[in-house]
Amino acid sequence: MNTLAVLHAAQLVTLAGPGRPRVGAELSDVAIVSHGGMLVRDGVIAALGRSDEIARQMPADAQVVDAGGRVVLPGFIDAHAHPVFGGNRVDEFELRARGASYEEIAAAGGGIRSTVAKTRAASEEELRQQALKHARWFLQCGTTTVEGKSGYGLTLADELKMLRVMRDLDAETPLEFVRTFLGAHAIPEEFRDQPERYVDCVINEMLPQVAAEGLAEYCDIFCERGYFDIETARRILTAAKSHQLRLRMHVDQLTNSGGAALAAELGAATADHLEQTEEDGIEALLRAKVQPVLLPGSVYALGKTRYPRAREMIDAGLAVVLATDFNPGSSQTPSMPMVLSLAATQMKMTPAEGVTAATINAAYSLHRGDRIGSLEPGKLANFAIFDCTDYRELAYYFGIPQTHSVYVKGERVFAATS
Amino acid sequence: MNTLAVLHAAQLVTLAGPGRPRVGAELSDVAIVSHGGMLVRDGVIAALGRSDEIARQMPADAQVVDAGGRVVLPGFIDAHAHPVFGGNRVDEFELRARGASYEEIAAAGGGIRSTVAKTRAASEEELRQQALKHARWFLQCGTTTVEGKSGYGLTLADELKMLRVMRDLDAETPLEFVRTFLGAHAIPEEFRDQPERYVDCVINEMLPQVAAEGLAEYCDIFCERGYFDIETARRILTAAKSHQLRLRMHVDQLTNSGGAALAAELGAATADHLEQTEEDGIEALLRAKVQPVLLPGSVYALGKTRYPRAREMIDAGLAVVLATDFNPGSSQTPSMPMVLSLAATQMKMTPAEGVTAATINAAYSLHRGDRIGSLEPGKLANFAIFDCTDYRELAYYFGIPQTHSVYVKGERVFAATS
Repeated sequence: MNTLAVLHAAQLVTLAGPGRPRVGAELSDVAIVSHGGMLVRDGVIAALGRSDEIARQMPADAQVVDAGGRVVLPGFIDAHAHPVFGGNRVDEFELRARGASYEEIAAAGGGIRSTVAKTRAASEEELRQQALKHARWFLQCGTTTVEGKSGYGLTLADELKMLRVMRDLDAETPLEFVRTFLGAHAIPEEFRDQPERYVDCVINEMLPQVAAEGLAEYCDIFCERGYFDIETARRILTAAKSHQLRLRMHVDQLTNSGGAALAAELGAATADHLEQTEEDGIEALLRAKVQPVLLPGSVYALGKTRYPRAREMIDAGLAVVLATDFNPGSSQTPSMPMVLSLAATQMKMTPAEGVTAATINAAYSLHRGDRIGSLEPGKLANFAIFDCTDYRELAYYFGIPQTHSVYVKGERVFAATS
Repeated sequence: MNTLAVLHAAQLVTLAGPGRPRVGAELSDVAIVSHGGMLVRDGVIAALGRSDEIARQMPADAQVVDAGGRVVLPGFIDAHAHPVFGGNRVDEFELRARGASYEEIAAAGGGIRSTVAKTRAASEEELRQQALKHARWFLQCGTTTVEGKSGYGLTLADELKMLRVMRDLDAETPLEFVRTFLGAHAIPEEFRDQPERYVDCVINEMLPQVAAEGLAEYCDIFCERGYFDIETARRILTAAKSHQLRLRMHVDQLTNSGGAALAAELGAATADHLEQTEEDGIEALLRAKVQPVLLPGSVYALGKTRYPRAREMIDAGLAVVLATDFNPGSSQTPSMPMVLSLAATQMKMTPAEGVTAATINAAYSLHRGDRIGSLEPGKLANFAIFDCTDYRELAYYFGIPQTHSVYVKGERVFAATS
């Protein structure tokens, strides 16, 4: 038996609590063991307590990880990301700095479509190499599970290619990838005049093949004016459900088009973005227990000021999730600490609410609440040590990595330069 | 002779150009050598050119730094920071997330005053240890020169203590500290009912001693309603000039109180913040050739949306500077790449304008334009290698350190985990 003892944590932020997503005031009540320690056996958490108690319990041959008065947290769970793509969009980024809007760039053939062209042109190995760099970034920021979407292929072959890259990186790297099929991310150029034929392709060709190969656990859609309207979204997602895929949805990002209500109607696991969602949308999510996934990185990076109504959602009793939305067009950050900063400064979420939304609530949104997202006996020993003495410093400082080291199943997978 | 050859830079962003701050359209025109290389002799840049040319020129015993197809930039120069302080303000940060305003917290005895209490209570050695951590952060983000202000002591002894910490860190670490006396940062608690007595203390006790000990090169003041008004600022800064200190000023951050005009009147090197500055202020700065120092980190971290008018300033012909304003109350980032991201996404500055403002223009604002801020023969070999192939990626990605390694006077002072 391989035993690891984590000792001398100034704060062991366990997030222990009821075995379900945290709602309302619970979000602001993170469980912390001061001067904490943790015992890990074969990659699974065996015990938690005060460091001196853990030191007494540990076997003589235990490998000791001295947290050195730092903060220990569960690995972050990033429940909405686009970690596989070809190239980047720095040219477009510069155009936006010069005043062009995201919508103008998209209308001129840029936006998602430009990444689609680069992703199609890239070989599976080229995509894998680029995504490997992103995987290292996620780990370096303390993220140990990332949800990853396809959606830059938009042909059967290219969507499968993206999903295979994530399947392979999940096996080859310590980062866990939860795969989501997002064939309905945009209407590709070649179907511009016959969008309904692309929808047929998604339903009749892509979904059955993705399901048959077991390449995705979730299906997502960009439900938005000019992309996929409510009726089309209902058709695609209903088909996805018939293939036993669970649902996530991009809704109400640019306009309030009733996407939150559709997510509720279809029993989606999550409704993501929600920048334009109003009271009725919040109520619909609440009734159907859909978890909102808030993505402040994309509001920031697009230079907008309308953030989703995090406070109203929390106060209404929703089990809010925070994620990076890492992607080359509208949110170029893989950093959950950066998202905690944005949540605190732009959405008035406290550091405790942020951390809860970025760990245990995110785990439940991916149906993994029993395995990851908190430090409790029986859960995987996925954790990060941060170079601070108070977990709130993760949201307080920004733009600087405070990661000291990261562990997945009890194995060290990243260590910063000392 | 100790020779270093930097080879194989995808882009060697030299910022070479006229020997003066860059104004207007010049800000968007950064000089770049593709496939570049650089020869360094005894810490000073000797030659720049194509990598293969540099390889031919280099002596046999040259130490080779293989940039490996990455981007090389001059070290960032952070021309406005508060790197020495006791404690932090995470409690207050949490209160702000819960809805309290910066002004409310200051009125309740928080804000600058709470850091003053912690800074006074800290020994010189404790302050030095904490600032050493900050110094490592700056270097890690690619900054090689930082302007550092006193201003959390507000007694003669405590102001001298802060300045000595910076003097010592300048000598002991590779990071260059340019020291600024900011005794007029706030009226300390004990002078609350007799603010004019504190002003007398600054003028008659602090300034002469700071000057006599050679502890500061600049004098700064927080010119703002409730802090130091225009008349008082004029008195203090005029006294500072009589001690041969150059001037920098915090102006127009919270209200437009005519601070920009005063900076112009007094011939200050810089006028900093300027969130509330209007056309007349811009014109005044232009006439007097005062450089504006823009601090988007503090707008962001305070959750505000009114950024300074960077575009109008550039278009008017001002030699704009970007800086972090690193401090525990309103801008908790030591990262210039984070500031480049903020400048692009929130102030519509292009990556080229950002980089110019963060290097050569910042150098001139500190009267060091002949020594640092660009990669040109005769200048110090202070440079950073970033793990990307296009310098615009520094502004494009955010929250993630892209620093590969950092060099000061040709010596490597930071290397990221590979």
